[in-house]
Amino acid sequence: MKVIIVGGVAGGASCAARLRRLDEKAEIVLVERGPYVSYANCGLPYHVGDVIEKESSLLVSNEQVFRAIFAVDCRTRCEAVAISPKEKTVQLKNHATGEVTTESYDKLVLSPGAAPIRPPLPGIDLPGIFTVRTVPDAREIRNWLERTPTELPEEGASSGFAPLDKAKRAVVVGGGYVGLEMAENLAHRGLEVTIVEMLDQVMAPLDPECARLVERHLEKHGVRLALGDAVAGFEQKENGTLEVQTKSGKAYPADLVILAIGVRPETALAKAAGLELGQRGGIRVDEHMRTSDPDILAVGDAVEVKDFVTGEWTLIPLAGPANRQGRIAADVIAGRDSRFRGTQGTSVLGLFGATVAMTGANEKLLKRLGQTDYEKVYLFPNSHAGYYPGAKTLVLKVLFRKSDGRLLGAQAMGQDGVEKRIDAIAMAIQMGGTVYDLEEAELCYAPQYGSAKDPVNFAGMVPADVLRGDMPLGHWDTLDGAFLLDVRNPPEIAVEAVPGAVNIPLPALRARLAELPKDREILVICRSAVRAYYATRILLGNGFKARNVSGGMSSRSMIVAKQRA
Amino acid sequence: MKVIIVGGVAGGASCAARLRRLDEKAEIVLVERGPYVSYANCGLPYHVGDVIEKESSLLVSNEQVFRAIFAVDCRTRCEAVAISPKEKTVQLKNHATGEVTTESYDKLVLSPGAAPIRPPLPGIDLPGIFTVRTVPDAREIRNWLERTPTELPEEGASSGFAPLDKAKRAVVVGGGYVGLEMAENLAHRGLEVTIVEMLDQVMAPLDPECARLVERHLEKHGVRLALGDAVAGFEQKENGTLEVQTKSGKAYPADLVILAIGVRPETALAKAAGLELGQRGGIRVDEHMRTSDPDILAVGDAVEVKDFVTGEWTLIPLAGPANRQGRIAADVIAGRDSRFRGTQGTSVLGLFGATVAMTGANEKLLKRLGQTDYEKVYLFPNSHAGYYPGAKTLVLKVLFRKSDGRLLGAQAMGQDGVEKRIDAIAMAIQMGGTVYDLEEAELCYAPQYGSAKDPVNFAGMVPADVLRGDMPLGHWDTLDGAFLLDVRNPPEIAVEAVPGAVNIPLPALRARLAELPKDREILVICRSAVRAYYATRILLGNGFKARNVSGGMSSRSMIVAKQRA
Repeated sequence: MKVIIVGGVAGGASCAARLRRLDEKAEIVLVERGPYVSYANCGLPYHVGDVIEKESSLLVSNEQVFRAIFAVDCRTRCEAVAISPKEKTVQLKNHATGEVTTESYDKLVLSPGAAPIRPPLPGIDLPGIFTVRTVPDAREIRNWLERTPTELPEEGASSGFAPLDKAKRAVVVGGGYVGLEMAENLAHRGLEVTIVEMLDQVMAPLDPECARLVERHLEKHGVRLALGDAVAGFEQKENGTLEVQTKSGKAYPADLVILAIGVRPETALAKAAGLELGQRGGIRVDEHMRTSDPDILAVGDAVEVKDFVTGEWTLIPLAGPANRQGRIAADVIAGRDSRFRGTQGTSVLGLFGATVAMTGANEKLLKRLGQTDYEKVYLFPNSHAGYYPGAKTLVLKVLFRKSDGRLLGAQAMGQDGVEKRIDAIAMAIQMGGTVYDLEEAELCYAPQYGSAKDPVNFAGMVPADVLRGDMPLGHWDTLDGAFLLDVRNPPEIAVEAVPGAVNIPLPALRARLAELPKDREILVICRSAVRAYYATRILLGNGFKARNVSGGMSSRSMIVAKQRA
Repeated sequence: MKVIIVGGVAGGASCAARLRRLDEKAEIVLVERGPYVSYANCGLPYHVGDVIEKESSLLVSNEQVFRAIFAVDCRTRCEAVAISPKEKTVQLKNHATGEVTTESYDKLVLSPGAAPIRPPLPGIDLPGIFTVRTVPDAREIRNWLERTPTELPEEGASSGFAPLDKAKRAVVVGGGYVGLEMAENLAHRGLEVTIVEMLDQVMAPLDPECARLVERHLEKHGVRLALGDAVAGFEQKENGTLEVQTKSGKAYPADLVILAIGVRPETALAKAAGLELGQRGGIRVDEHMRTSDPDILAVGDAVEVKDFVTGEWTLIPLAGPANRQGRIAADVIAGRDSRFRGTQGTSVLGLFGATVAMTGANEKLLKRLGQTDYEKVYLFPNSHAGYYPGAKTLVLKVLFRKSDGRLLGAQAMGQDGVEKRIDAIAMAIQMGGTVYDLEEAELCYAPQYGSAKDPVNFAGMVPADVLRGDMPLGHWDTLDGAFLLDVRNPPEIAVEAVPGAVNIPLPALRARLAELPKDREILVICRSAVRAYYATRILLGNGFKARNVSGGMSSRSMIVAKQRA
């Protein structure tokens, strides 16, 4: 059996190594267009930022290892330029020699990845505008940042582009994962960074009110945000800098521009071969990673996968799923019944000492799908026991089905213990878990690590209280004209009050019930909805109609700020 | 309805607060023998170590809060001294006044906790010997450590016990959680610490080879270990110090002794009331936390619970389960159908910058129960991507059922990202997950947090390889006379070789297969069993019989060292 694998990074490299382990005799050819296989593209921004100092650190494996240990015919600088599914052949172009050869296959695996989007804007090809996908990309950015006049080839003369002593200002186009990681790393190197983002929020996988916290965090660390604005073009100025011009008419000077608008599945080869593509523009595969041609499989960023939670087709360019898909493709080629269960979009971002993580569906997606059988809660627990030094507030948004408590998704932000809560919730979602399962979760507790009631437990307890009817829920964006009761203490209210809210501090509530209306629904507010929960229970237990405003003042600052913006 | 709750720490306090939320009208009496309710006893060692500086930090809630917010008749220094289940009354002794009153109840909840074991050894009551259970205990230890002559009451004169300038040497009796946390905190304060432990390992919930790593870590940080030796008695020396004498005839001088031998459920009250106790010495309850008397419930460290994995009765004195049980007891009293699903013993310990965590069954327990349908693997993955700075090796032992891959338990040690892997595995165990589920887990990955294949994925992939027959497994303790093939490189072997093993480095293996026997089973060794896995696949694919020695040299250093010791 001869297997050709096109693309040698996460999905392709995993597939090649796994296939060799399953079949000692197969002929395996791994071709990679670029100079390296199996490199750490998730590390590129950190190499630009000098956090990962050596470029060689990014090279997780190499051609020689694939040859010596996996007996894989590994060819770099070799590009698959055409497929003939009928003849079961691939045309391979050797970029070193320019030679094109035709090779036959029994099975073909496509792992071409996704390419950074590079819109055809005026000036897009000017020097100083970079994308971040490959090791050479990172090298070029580093060279650009460290350039000295002599190192700049022909530049001064041919383009009128004067060399800089040192890049001082960067514009990052796009506020997604790569954009934010690049922003942090460029700031880390001392550059002033502006992010231009077409959407009115950074990090599209987050709901906007959660993204607002990330935006504040960026601003706090000196990153300037231009949200809701798109780049119109780039211009080269006489003083040797670039100017990024936006549709709203603004102009941002830049010594360096990073294009991180997103990625597009590399489907040209598949399309030309007549393989079926999906509505989202990726290669269509079944759960065995087989394309519409049963002898051609596809994996990684180029394929559409099923969203595990919603069942929708989606594009998830993440390394974890790519690796698993590569393994599954190898299994299937080796005759095994492995299936990809879909993806739940678990992801994490580190940003100036904070962590943002998420798993499952967000509320935007549920709304877009027209789903109404869901509820959400906002929580602000401590990262570990408050009595042990160093506890930080975690922000958690949990989405769950109203009808049965099934977990749909979670978003978390904070400085400590963020991703481990999302990991536990991701595992629960994978297992079809409910909020009741989180309620009963038994996780590691010692005061420096968590709390006897872990944030994950709260992420179950609070929704369960809602679903059992113990805590009817209110939300800031749907309060319209309700009776508002603020149970915080006067000094807290002096700092920030909710217009129109009546104040009765929680400890005084039972004695002052007569001041409250029995015929109106009372929406109860406190700082983070814990005291308001107690108050809601007191009110319900005394015959009042009451709801707890989820997340209290803490979520208000996310939601109301976003509405104003 | 009148409910009396005996014991105001984790279980009792949770029960009182929850019950009030469920029933605004119930009369709730919470009695606590000590001076404080709802305090953080998990923080006591860290208060002794001055990590938690203020005693007040340990007081998570207080009598006033329970009265004002929860309308609970909260009484500290009030002890339940007798129960009459027939008359449904409790005798309560007020320690401030000495007065004993009789109170009736409709429902009674016992949350008396567990008391540190204080064996009747000679000298056990000498000054300077402490247990660590309550806030006053911690205060006394701190005072003792900081004592000056004038602060010592009567001491010099009456007992001949001369005051010290400063305690310099501590003996901790018992190498469990509290013992190790006290050892760390006393070392943190500059004391020389010796741990005397009757068992031949510290941390009984760990398997011995895993405990060995903890022991090495303790020794590396200057803690002396006297394992397999029990205390015979204590003596007061003329120079003002104590001497801890052991059964093996050794004597350890000490300015301070911590008794952390373990805890015993406080069952005297329950026993006197005729309530059923279990074989393990705890109060017997059903899944609704009801004792043999349907109007008396019991929660927390005093009750026996079902081990979620093995179904065996067990005593698990942990705060998380105690809190959940308190909530469940409240639910049941309020007429709800809440059930305790059992405990899986998830726990974590911080120790001199390292973390040790575990969940589910250990191998010792499986062996004791006579189970044979299990297998184990040892793994040594990186805490996060190796190409990002700061990655540390994690040690993972995973236990799973051979017949169906069901997860049984896991133990983990390392400096970073330890407890989050155990949390994810704990969640999988709770949901009845298998190693195949871990294989497919989609967890947070960015290079500073994990790897595209997370250690949790490896904890599934390696067992799944075993169960699918792709990787027959060998273990160091059952190698007897097998053909050993070491596929490491010569420089590694120069550092430490396995006697009798033949060396063929992995990259040379395919070319040198003729040197290996076809008629014998080949046990393959490398550093951490990754290269040996590749080699095993090469051998199996070429018609050899081969097994991979789980954990390679890394697990050998745990297992062989333990056997020698």
